[in-house]
Amino acid sequence: MTSTAPRPAVPTGLDLSADLLTLTRAVCDVPSVSGDERALADLVETALRPCTHLEVLRDGDTVVARTALGRARRVVLAGHLDTVPVAANLPTRVTGEGPDAVLWGRGTVDMKAGVAVLLSLAAELTTPSDDVTWVFYDHEEVAADLSGLGRVVERHPDWLVGDFAVLGEPTAGGIEGGCNGTLRARVVVPGVAAHSARAWTGVNAIHAAGEVLRRLEAYRPATVSIDRLDYREGLNAVLISGGTAANVVPDRCEVTVNYRFAPSRTADEAIAHVREVLAGFDVEVLDVAAGALPGLGHPAARAFVSAVLGAGGPAPTAKLGWTDVARFSALGVPAVNFGPGDPLLAHRDDERCPVAQVEAVHAALRAWLTRA
Amino acid sequence: MTSTAPRPAVPTGLDLSADLLTLTRAVCDVPSVSGDERALADLVETALRPCTHLEVLRDGDTVVARTALGRARRVVLAGHLDTVPVAANLPTRVTGEGPDAVLWGRGTVDMKAGVAVLLSLAAELTTPSDDVTWVFYDHEEVAADLSGLGRVVERHPDWLVGDFAVLGEPTAGGIEGGCNGTLRARVVVPGVAAHSARAWTGVNAIHAAGEVLRRLEAYRPATVSIDRLDYREGLNAVLISGGTAANVVPDRCEVTVNYRFAPSRTADEAIAHVREVLAGFDVEVLDVAAGALPGLGHPAARAFVSAVLGAGGPAPTAKLGWTDVARFSALGVPAVNFGPGDPLLAHRDDERCPVAQVEAVHAALRAWLTRA
Repeated sequence: MTSTAPRPAVPTGLDLSADLLTLTRAVCDVPSVSGDERALADLVETALRPCTHLEVLRDGDTVVARTALGRARRVVLAGHLDTVPVAANLPTRVTGEGPDAVLWGRGTVDMKAGVAVLLSLAAELTTPSDDVTWVFYDHEEVAADLSGLGRVVERHPDWLVGDFAVLGEPTAGGIEGGCNGTLRARVVVPGVAAHSARAWTGVNAIHAAGEVLRRLEAYRPATVSIDRLDYREGLNAVLISGGTAANVVPDRCEVTVNYRFAPSRTADEAIAHVREVLAGFDVEVLDVAAGALPGLGHPAARAFVSAVLGAGGPAPTAKLGWTDVARFSALGVPAVNFGPGDPLLAHRDDERCPVAQVEAVHAALRAWLTRA
Repeated sequence: MTSTAPRPAVPTGLDLSADLLTLTRAVCDVPSVSGDERALADLVETALRPCTHLEVLRDGDTVVARTALGRARRVVLAGHLDTVPVAANLPTRVTGEGPDAVLWGRGTVDMKAGVAVLLSLAAELTTPSDDVTWVFYDHEEVAADLSGLGRVVERHPDWLVGDFAVLGEPTAGGIEGGCNGTLRARVVVPGVAAHSARAWTGVNAIHAAGEVLRRLEAYRPATVSIDRLDYREGLNAVLISGGTAANVVPDRCEVTVNYRFAPSRTADEAIAHVREVLAGFDVEVLDVAAGALPGLGHPAARAFVSAVLGAGGPAPTAKLGWTDVARFSALGVPAVNFGPGDPLLAHRDDERCPVAQVEAVHAALRAWLTRA
């Protein structure tokens, strides 16, 4: 269904049995910019409450619903409710028809189409093959310390227990396993100030920082294969500043570096590696978040990969950006990213998602969760 | 005289026949931070008007007084009336006695002790050996386009005509000939932005700027000898900035360089040299001011050097920082810096000058201007 007929701008209820496009549009058309997820969280909770096969839990604007069928395994399927700010790209609109239909608007990629798929399956699958925990959380698009998922990890870690997790972040319908870790560090290069007319009486900190840049330029980042996925690393200067005035030899130059490291490295190993590359310089770690192993060897993951491949999906690849799969990994739950939408279109004003991709993701997850 | 007895905080008149310490204190104790020179300029003009051997001219807060004796040569002696902001270091105070007396306070170095010497001699020397033009000007310690001397160069170039000029800037009583030129340029190094998790899809501008720093670090500045004075050059990165966020490969890095060049190079030659050193990079010249040749071969200059050496002063050296001698040089008037006070103490809260140095400078100039 690719109707472009007029519809209410902001839905007042979610019909989880509606067709997928209708449900996706309804979820997108309730604005839920980070910090403002209440209305959508209320609609999600209200829509799930009548499902007698689910226990519904809530913490702030995070809603969790889970089956309790006594299955041998439990899987977790999660998505965030929030988006980056709306840019005059709501309500949603549809272009094209049939297999060419495309849904445009804020959240269609990141990641309300994924949320709609999960909601639809949560309501429909009263007896899934594994026990399932559905998680809809707040505050993903903002500072990590505000994360709704992080809050639940802290307050209710039992809500997230499982053998395997799927995060519905946009992957254009492919499986992106695990994720790289990320580290930020500040390198402070000291000097001795002097009037630039008598430069030899000082020590130029910016010139001295040249050696930091030289090492970063010469650095050849590794590519680490895990479960046949290639995690491509990177070590980059991302910010630099130095100097106080145009007639003063600078006494300080500061370089901020960002290291993206394979999930096989621990945070401590990543820190040690950066210190080794920049040996002789003062390296201050600003923050570090370990990555997540793809865990594709886990039986639940193997069944999932088979289902996606069976539905015609592409072979799994490595996730390079840090995502919330790392929060599951930290709980000991292997996790992958799998959702509709091209991640390169996320956050853009022209954010848009092929409807067929939403349907394909829905079909693959449904096949997996209803397997014999 | 090194009395520390109480005295009025701000003099209401200048007695040019007073002893040198008294006059210096009086000049210092009238605050004249750049832009606020009016009160001192008025006092200077009022004190010089009664000198019948002088023609007194005024433009804004610049006062010029000159003899018209029909001498074969005319020399110009100049000093600026303004100071950097007062830092609770006024009124002046004296420590020590006799040959150890030291005068403390804003302007004692830069350069009101020099101004007091010039004022004292202007009033006393009714029949100097050369015709003399005495110049007391405003706005030296601020942006070049505000300079009172620059204004007079533009409006009344005839007021500054002469064969040789002495600028009373602090040189600790030695002759500092000419000055180096100075050039500021901005080097913009481009890159291609990318998410730092996929750094290989971009080009890191900060890494690319490493080559700029490498060349500056490897650069060996020249020392150019002119009139047996050594002009030591310098080429330094003074400012650097780049990057927009810690998760973005930077698409721009900007390096500001400062080139201090010998007065034998023209501004155009200096620009060409910097472009040559940084060949392959986009070099934008922000400003350039040529230096000043010392002109110590000029007959008037030779007589001046003899007088200073005869009074026990040190051998001339090169002035490295850019000073207003370059404005005289641009008018075709060779010029030197010669004044009391250690230039390294200029602008400091503990600015101070040995009284004996004020007296020595006074004696040397007096000997020169009264030679047979």
